Parts: sequence; C-alpha cells; structure tokens
Amino acid sequence: MRNISLIVSYDGTNYHGWQCQPELITVQQTLQERIEKIVNHHIKLFAGARTDSGVHAYGQTVNFLTSSTIELKGLTRGLNSLLPPDIRISHAGEADRNFHSRYSAKSKIYIYSILNSAYNTPFYTRYVWHIPYSLNVLSMNRTVKLITGAHDFSAFKKKDTLYQNPIREVLQAGVKKRGDFIYVVIEGAGFLRYMVRNIVGTLMLVGSGKLTENDFRVILESKEREKAGPTAPAKGLFLRRIKY
Amino acid sequence: MRNISLIVSYDGTNYHGWQCQPELITVQQTLQERIEKIVNHHIKLFAGARTDSGVHAYGQTVNFLTSSTIELKGLTRGLNSLLPPDIRISHAGEADRNFHSRYSAKSKIYIYSILNSAYNTPFYTRYVWHIPYSLNVLSMNRTVKLITGAHDFSAFKKKDTLYQNPIREVLQAGVKKRGDFIYVVIEGAGFLRYMVRNIVGTLMLVGSGKLTENDFRVILESKEREKAGPTAPAKGLFLRRIKY
Repeated sequence: MRNISLIVSYDGTNYHGWQCQPELITVQQTLQERIEKIVNHHIKLFAGARTDSGVHAYGQTVNFLTSSTIELKGLTRGLNSLLPPDIRISHAGEADRNFHSRYSAKSKIYIYSILNSAYNTPFYTRYVWHIPYSLNVLSMNRTVKLITGAHDFSAFKKKDTLYQNPIREVLQAGVKKRGDFIYVVIEGAGFLRYMVRNIVGTLMLVGSGKLTENDFRVILESKEREKAGPTAPAKGLFLRRIKY
Repeated sequence: MRNISLIVSYDGTNYHGWQCQPELITVQQTLQERIEKIVNHHIKLFAGARTDSGVHAYGQTVNFLTSSTIELKGLTRGLNSLLPPDIRISHAGEADRNFHSRYSAKSKIYIYSILNSAYNTPFYTRYVWHIPYSLNVLSMNRTVKLITGAHDFSAFKKKDTLYQNPIREVLQAGVKKRGDFIYVVIEGAGFLRYMVRNIVGTLMLVGSGKLTENDFRVILESKEREKAGPTAPAKGLFLRRIKY
C-alpha cells in the first residue's frame, strides 16, 4: 500500500467545514469521492486540521492509503479536473507508511484577514472581516503576544463545549498591516474549536480601544468564555500551512 | 438639479455587463433601481465605460441628475446597504452640471490579470486567466508597446462588428509580473469592443513563443480580425479607473 499526501487549498464559503456530516456538503466528502473515483476503491481520508464551516484553507495537508499505481502527476491533474474550482490540489507526494496528516503534525499556522477601510470592496467580501472604523494595530500586536506559550485557553473556547484538557501551546502570534489589510497570524501546536476566531474577536475590542492589553490578559487568565469578545466571522480565517 | 457622480466597483461574474438589456440582470439596472429607491424619482444613469458581460470594475465612474437633497454620505451608506455585496460604492461627489461620466472622460485604464502558475488557486478563479505554462513577460512587455499611439485597431475588434472609425489612441501599455501574477495594463482614450481582450489573447501567443514581436506588428497592421489570436476570457479584465 502507498501512503499519498496532498496539499489542498479551498474556498470554504460553500462548504459545511472539512469533516463529513450526513446530508451536508463538506470538503472531505467532496475530495474523498473524487479520489475514490480515480483510485477505484474506498479510502479513508485524513486531514491535518478539521476546519469549521466557512473557513478557508490555503495549505491543508491530507493523506490516504491506496493500492493504486497511478502516477502522482496524473493523480493531481485528474483530481483538479474532477474537483469543483473552489477546491484545488497544489501538490501530491509519497509519504512514509507511518505518516498521518493529523497525528504527525508539529504545528498549524492560521491567518485571520481583516479589511480595515471605510468601504468594503466586491472582490474580497468572501475572504475578510470588514471593519470600517480605525484599529490600533500596534496595540493589537502587543496584546496578541500574550497568548504565546502554553495556556488554559478556556476563555476562548466554543461556548458550551467541555474539554478534559483545555491547555494548548501557541508557538508564535503577531498582527501586521499591509495596505488596508490587517493579518492576525497564529502558529500553535494545537487549538481549541473557535479559539482563533474568539481571540481575534477579543483582539478587535483592543484594536478599537474598548479593551486594554491588561483587560485581555485578565480575560485569558479568567478561563471564562463569557468574559471574552464575540467570535470573529468564519470567512476571514485561513488555515495557512501545517508543519511536520 | 444636482449632478452626482459615484465611483463604483463590481464583481462582474454574475452580471450581463454594465448596460441595461431586457430580461437580463446588468450592473446598470441593479444600481439604477437602488438609486431610484433612495432619490424617489426616475433617473438616467450614465457610466464612463460600458463593460461587457463578466468584466469587473475597480473604479467605474457614473453620474445622474437628481432633485433629491440627500447628503452624499447618506447616499453612499444607503446604496451600500441596498446593493448586493458584489457592487460597492466607494465615493460620491457633487459634479459640475455639465459633467458627463462618458463624454467628459479623458482616458480609461484597463488591467488584465493572468495567474501564471502550475496550479490555479480557489481564491482567484473568478478574477484571473489561469495559464499553467511559462510565459515570456519581457517579450510580452516589449510587444504590447507597439499599440501605443493612434492606430486602426480593426485586427483586435469584436468579430463581425463594423466601425465607421476604428482608429483609437492608446496612451500607455505595459506588462508586469508580481509573484505568480502577470498584469497587462492599457490606458487609452477609447477602445473598440473586445479590443483589450483580443490584444491580450494575441499577446499570450507571443508570451508562449508561438508568435514573435514582429508577427504581432504584422497582425496589427493587417487590420484583419482573423489574423489575431483568441479573445481572452472576460473574468481577467478589470476597468481600473477613468481619468477626467
């Protein structure tokens, strides 16, 4: 059996997230069906990160075992011709037999995109959170550094979810401005569900002056979801890359 | 009566071009209906350029006469809340009574976007012509300069159209590369229909080595549409800006 890994990018707008769900169109199901058509047998498809509904991926990594002898180039071309244009394969490789896109992952990089301008443009609406009032990027950048290291991230979890272990390790975090765009970049060994979007939602309150850097620290340390800001919309979030 | 001008950007994907046509959804009709709802009377809406079906605009200029006393800020906000997200107003201004977005225009700048990479990405599919083989940008840039000045552009007109005067003046033209993207930029005092897309389609044959710079010159001078290359797809074309 070969263990094949793929780098996949997708526009999550029209999908109910990565993971297969009965009656709903997901990226996993869409991709798995096309792979099965090509390799001609059922497969199990694993992904480095299970992105939520509406979230995009620039570099998701997936893998599957197959008995097919198809060449990697032919596989990539075949998949790109069978897949809808909002899912693209940019790379296919042969992986070690014990490589697992989820369990072998060392870290994941997420980027959250904000368009900070008076008016939205028609070309980015599906990929940014549009904020028409001005944001203090320096103070957002200082504040987001507070999440680096290992923390109990319960304050930024999805409401009404229970974790046996809500501690996750953030390797680096920063906020940068490029023209009218503001990007929040977070690299972590693991994430709670909605964690990035809840951090961004709270960080926006710092950027607009409603909260101070110290308020953010108090919220993180409180471990109470109710204290934090709103969940930033899914459409601004990109899974940038998974490191192995 | 006030003469109000607007800067409009739109994603042309879902529209049958700018100009009103019976039974078809166009940008003009969509915008005009929203303006009429706000000013509360019928208007005539003029545009600097009548973009074709599927073509985008980053900075289209339009104008209309109105007896309404609405403030410009309120007009912009009102329109942006009534319009679908693929049409946005970025500016509203009071124009001289004799300003006409079409007849007062000095020049128009069009940009054609090409994604020149082995694989397409899901995020730009609606805005680029994806070319997977490598293109010679230097030779495309040298060649496109041949169109500057006043020329009979019949070789690049829409098939089966007749012009009394097919001479148009191009003020500047260039091709530049930015990462995997290649942009063809053409500024002209006027354009024949499909002219930019036919120039780009022919320029691609130069970029891929199928035609030389001199072949392009011969095609331009022949004034025969049959000699030129294919029409580049509408989705890569942006009306960038109109100069007055």
